[in-house]
Amino acid sequence: MYAPNTKIIDIERRPIEDYVFEAVISFQAGVNEIILKGRGDFISRAVDVYWALKDRLGDSIELSNVEIGSERIRGRMRSYIAIHIRRKY
Amino acid sequence: MYAPNTKIIDIERRPIEDYVFEAVISFQAGVNEIILKGRGDFISRAVDVYWALKDRLGDSIELSNVEIGSERIRGRMRSYIAIHIRRKY
Repeated sequence: MYAPNTKIIDIERRPIEDYVFEAVISFQAGVNEIILKGRGDFISRAVDVYWALKDRLGDSIELSNVEIGSERIRGRMRSYIAIHIRRKY
Repeated sequence: MYAPNTKIIDIERRPIEDYVFEAVISFQAGVNEIILKGRGDFISRAVDVYWALKDRLGDSIELSNVEIGSERIRGRMRSYIAIHIRRKY
């Protein structure tokens, strides 16, 4: 579904800095694209993680796409966001 | 900043159905594009409003853009989402 060099990070209740750290490490390890995925109430948090990461990495990353979707989880529809971030150099 | 035939709906704590109703009425009144804007914790709710509206209006609307941004409000940075929806016919 996604390119092999893509990492998906599921955003849940851990501290925002943990996710930022995970993303930074992944880029350093050679990942080209990170997708921050937040579901339900964690959608807002995924956006906060994006901005914290942007603060940290500045122009070396760019927002390549923002998807919003809806998927069935245990019988109920839940909204999600998928924030695609690319490493520029 | 936005086309004259665009309506911005700020998503806050009112029931989701209220926002859906406001959007439906706006499209009926001739608006071509609606922007659902949610800030902070209301980002998730804006996505929920989008899906409730999509359920109601189906293929007569399309998602034209999803922006995520950050703006200064009373001295703090706050994240927001702006979901752009167009009427197709």
